[in-house]
Amino acid sequence: MTDAHSSDWSYIPELANVDVNRFAIAVAGLDGQVHVAGDAARPFSIQSVSKVFTLTLALGKLGDTMWSRVGREPSGNAFNSIVQLEQEKGRPRNPFINAGAITVADLILAGHEPREAIGEIVRFVRFLADDDTIRIDERVAHSELATGDRNASLAHFMRSFGRLDNPVDHVLGVYFHHCALAVTCRQLAVAGQYLAAGGVSPKTGARVISAERARRINAVMLTCGHYDGSGEFAYRVGLPGKSGVGGAILAVAPGKASIAVWSPGLDPVGNSKLGAEALEMLTHRTGWSVFGA
Amino acid sequence: MTDAHSSDWSYIPELANVDVNRFAIAVAGLDGQVHVAGDAARPFSIQSVSKVFTLTLALGKLGDTMWSRVGREPSGNAFNSIVQLEQEKGRPRNPFINAGAITVADLILAGHEPREAIGEIVRFVRFLADDDTIRIDERVAHSELATGDRNASLAHFMRSFGRLDNPVDHVLGVYFHHCALAVTCRQLAVAGQYLAAGGVSPKTGARVISAERARRINAVMLTCGHYDGSGEFAYRVGLPGKSGVGGAILAVAPGKASIAVWSPGLDPVGNSKLGAEALEMLTHRTGWSVFGA
Amino acid sequence: MTDAHSSDWSYIPELANVDVNRFAIAVAGLDGQVHVAGDAARPFSIQSVSKVFTLTLALGKLGDTMWSRVGREPSGNAFNSIVQLEQEKGRPRNPFINAGAITVADLILAGHEPREAIGEIVRFVRFLADDDTIRIDERVAHSELATGDRNASLAHFMRSFGRLDNPVDHVLGVYFHHCALAVTCRQLAVAGQYLAAGGVSPKTGARVISAERARRINAVMLTCGHYDGSGEFAYRVGLPGKSGVGGAILAVAPGKASIAVWSPGLDPVGNSKLGAEALEMLTHRTGWSVFGA
Amino acid sequence: MTDAHSSDWSYIPELANVDVNRFAIAVAGLDGQVHVAGDAARPFSIQSVSKVFTLTLALGKLGDTMWSRVGREPSGNAFNSIVQLEQEKGRPRNPFINAGAITVADLILAGHEPREAIGEIVRFVRFLADDDTIRIDERVAHSELATGDRNASLAHFMRSFGRLDNPVDHVLGVYFHHCALAVTCRQLAVAGQYLAAGGVSPKTGARVISAERARRINAVMLTCGHYDGSGEFAYRVGLPGKSGVGGAILAVAPGKASIAVWSPGLDPVGNSKLGAEALEMLTHRTGWSVFGA
Repeated sequence: MTDAHSSDWSYIPELANVDVNRFAIAVAGLDGQVHVAGDAARPFSIQSVSKVFTLTLALGKLGDTMWSRVGREPSGNAFNSIVQLEQEKGRPRNPFINAGAITVADLILAGHEPREAIGEIVRFVRFLADDDTIRIDERVAHSELATGDRNASLAHFMRSFGRLDNPVDHVLGVYFHHCALAVTCRQLAVAGQYLAAGGVSPKTGARVISAERARRINAVMLTCGHYDGSGEFAYRVGLPGKSGVGGAILAVAPGKASIAVWSPGLDPVGNSKLGAEALEMLTHRTGWSVFGA
Repeated sequence: MTDAHSSDWSYIPELANVDVNRFAIAVAGLDGQVHVAGDAARPFSIQSVSKVFTLTLALGKLGDTMWSRVGREPSGNAFNSIVQLEQEKGRPRNPFINAGAITVADLILAGHEPREAIGEIVRFVRFLADDDTIRIDERVAHSELATGDRNASLAHFMRSFGRLDNPVDHVLGVYFHHCALAVTCRQLAVAGQYLAAGGVSPKTGARVISAERARRINAVMLTCGHYDGSGEFAYRVGLPGKSGVGGAILAVAPGKASIAVWSPGLDPVGNSKLGAEALEMLTHRTGWSVFGA
Repeated sequence: MTDAHSSDWSYIPELANVDVNRFAIAVAGLDGQVHVAGDAARPFSIQSVSKVFTLTLALGKLGDTMWSRVGREPSGNAFNSIVQLEQEKGRPRNPFINAGAITVADLILAGHEPREAIGEIVRFVRFLADDDTIRIDERVAHSELATGDRNASLAHFMRSFGRLDNPVDHVLGVYFHHCALAVTCRQLAVAGQYLAAGGVSPKTGARVISAERARRINAVMLTCGHYDGSGEFAYRVGLPGKSGVGGAILAVAPGKASIAVWSPGLDPVGNSKLGAEALEMLTHRTGWSVFGA
Repeated sequence: MTDAHSSDWSYIPELANVDVNRFAIAVAGLDGQVHVAGDAARPFSIQSVSKVFTLTLALGKLGDTMWSRVGREPSGNAFNSIVQLEQEKGRPRNPFINAGAITVADLILAGHEPREAIGEIVRFVRFLADDDTIRIDERVAHSELATGDRNASLAHFMRSFGRLDNPVDHVLGVYFHHCALAVTCRQLAVAGQYLAAGGVSPKTGARVISAERARRINAVMLTCGHYDGSGEFAYRVGLPGKSGVGGAILAVAPGKASIAVWSPGLDPVGNSKLGAEALEMLTHRTGWSVFGA
């Protein structure tokens, strides 16, 4: 998974054959009800949407000291990501650009074996989705390992500033694997409910994080969740959201619902075209925009 | 007025003598009530907070075609503002960085004389605040004209790409004058109410803009309103807001209130330190964050 | 005159009508002989080649303290010129990029009236060329004043860092005027002889600068004289040289000759295409490359 | 070996213990005579000076088509190296910045095993120096392999643009090994003689490259040989030269001599302080500057 440089993601060979016209949506209300439409039972590659969950996990393990390792400001375009990474001495601008998510993977690793860290992440996502069938698509994970030169470049770059504690291949192993999680829209919407519900998972009643931390993760999603299309998504949709080049978007309507959409056709900055349009229509009709009815 | 390069704004000589410990707050609820504390009747220099009102005015005059001239993505730090301006051929990233606000001033000018455009802006802010006593502080305006080399540089730079229609000195004249508006916290909070109230000014009942446009301006404020501290403000305060180097912040709690704070001590990215802290306490206690209760 | 952004210089309206197929060359040997071919008596606009003479003049007035205000390193492409100017706090990389030459103009001005500084430069070039008929083409000078937004941007940018002592319009007035000098190839070749002859003008026997300073100016010409084509010119021609968007190149074969070529067709980085080819053939045949026979 | 980011090179642990006050010089005239002073028989790490020899070797193997893979323009500072590498889609500016030398290593590899390419380079340098005792210091080579994150970052970055044909670890293996060649000043001066002597090795009479190619390599050395101190070296010394962070500089006086100096104390841009001063004194006394007597 890579900051989008082109409007398709053929750079992950395993994903290049998916039909771009497919579409699915799932809306998980705080009452536990999940409404779905389209291919909502079809698994897709979660890609960068997983960064929301690894951020949550890292905050749970390290608390706010985590923010000494990664910022929370928007980063501008992919070009500027690298320029800024150099200027800011290898400290990524936010946890949702690739450099930042690689740093989060490094923090979760914390000296353990990659398979332990990967296992921990998978268990966490299963817990959030209340679904033990969620798995990593190994072909996708290995497809990335083979082609991920840009991420390897970022990781070595940060390491040259002393910003990674673990070996680059371990960190990237964790990163590529959590991006290769296969989920359905239904699973993803349920997994994101804690962000809409003040940190508590409505289905199980378990507290995942504090209400304040849920608000804060939503804030980072809103300002940084769509690469260089974050401003546009806020303008059009008006919800915290996180996109992935697999075509998924997880959006959060605080106090109302968690919404997952999926459609593989991407816009020039790498976000799902139909997905964003569907969310725009949804907030238009429901008045769920955080910016006013 | 300039993208903040240092933690004080002594570069506007007229403003350098204000006591940094002063503080004021005004909360204008949608019922028309205004609650104030501190120096709420003391006028201060509105500086970049005025960009919210010139954006609103330009959208009213040109509609969404305005967005062909200025983007709505966060810009990263001041350094990147210029790099990106070059990469993007003189089209500013958003209307709240200086280059963007200069472009908005150019659009409002539209071939007229500077004093006409300035007059139109002053009348618009008076209308929003329902207060005809609001004036421009000419000493501040001229203080900027004398020292505004960085803004002159940006304006000529954009003009070299064919991005300004009016002469640079006309455009900067308009820009420096609207930044030199003197307002009180009470006036500013009332002026911003239309953004909290779906585009309608509660005090007068007048519709300023459509509800959708109010939401969208709020979105741009949230992602871009605090220069390179926009992510931080969203994270801590959780409200759309716009800061100025005069020490003011206008924050919007959609459906609830418009809040103006003022305190001249600035943080390193140029935003009011006490002002942001007061807003953080306020949203903590009221649950007004747009990101959840 | 502007760092070349396009392969033509239609941005100086007065120059856009010159026939691109014209060509002239003049070789001024150290014995005082001048050999010419082509349109060698036709005046053209000297443009950036004048920067060699203003650098010489400024070094004569200020000595090596001048280098505290401008560097002597190559700058990469025009994009990087601005990025580096920001990084290096308004100190230009070298005296041959526009920002550097504007700084040199500021140093020559030194508080005087623009017409005095312009007069001093004209007298200096006449002295070097031993020809009092050399004049400024006022139409070209004013053509630049009207369109020079990019240079105005650079000048205000440097002034915002406290790097210019004189008002921007004074500095640009001097700069645009010395770029608008009209010279013939013969005049230009003679004017450059002191650089080939250890600082002495062979025609008059007058010492212009020390031998060491002549060597050093040659070094700056070789590393920085052709914008982002400096490496290419060194590689192909092997002589110190300075180009201008008017189509002129002044090249120096130390101990042998001063050579002026002129042909208005430019390559993508803004240097005379035929001019560079002619010089490549010349050094190939004469063995005059400084890099070996 | 890395573009110098600090004034010492403690990032190559094996090299950090060398006494910074040591000094050596060797001048190899075209008559075959070699004059030495100081520690001229003491081996040091050649580091980036080896890039002159790998460039020569690659040009011999591929001819001028090599230039489609790497440019020949100066690159500005290390920061700009990366910015420009992104802008120019992974094509390095010149063969003497690290990215460029890594590309040259990739071209020499050409699908072979690293040890074959390394062997070919060692044999070539031995041939140039007419000395079969020259070896690679394996501790230095492995010291780099362990710490070379910045070069790994560059290599993966170029590979992400499709700019490297061989696996990154193979390319870096070749690169780190040729930088770890141990030579004395005497050996280095002799090895560089072909550049002063029109492409022929005076000691053996063997033609290494054509006279034209020797001139051109000298040109690239002059404009790009000292990282962001290239302009300064040209200005002060006036000779084509290539420095390495091991403290060596190879300088070429065309038609006169090849000069090697070594002293491990570096200036802020990573070039030998005493070495450059010695060369400045030498050209001052001998009149060998290419820019005039």
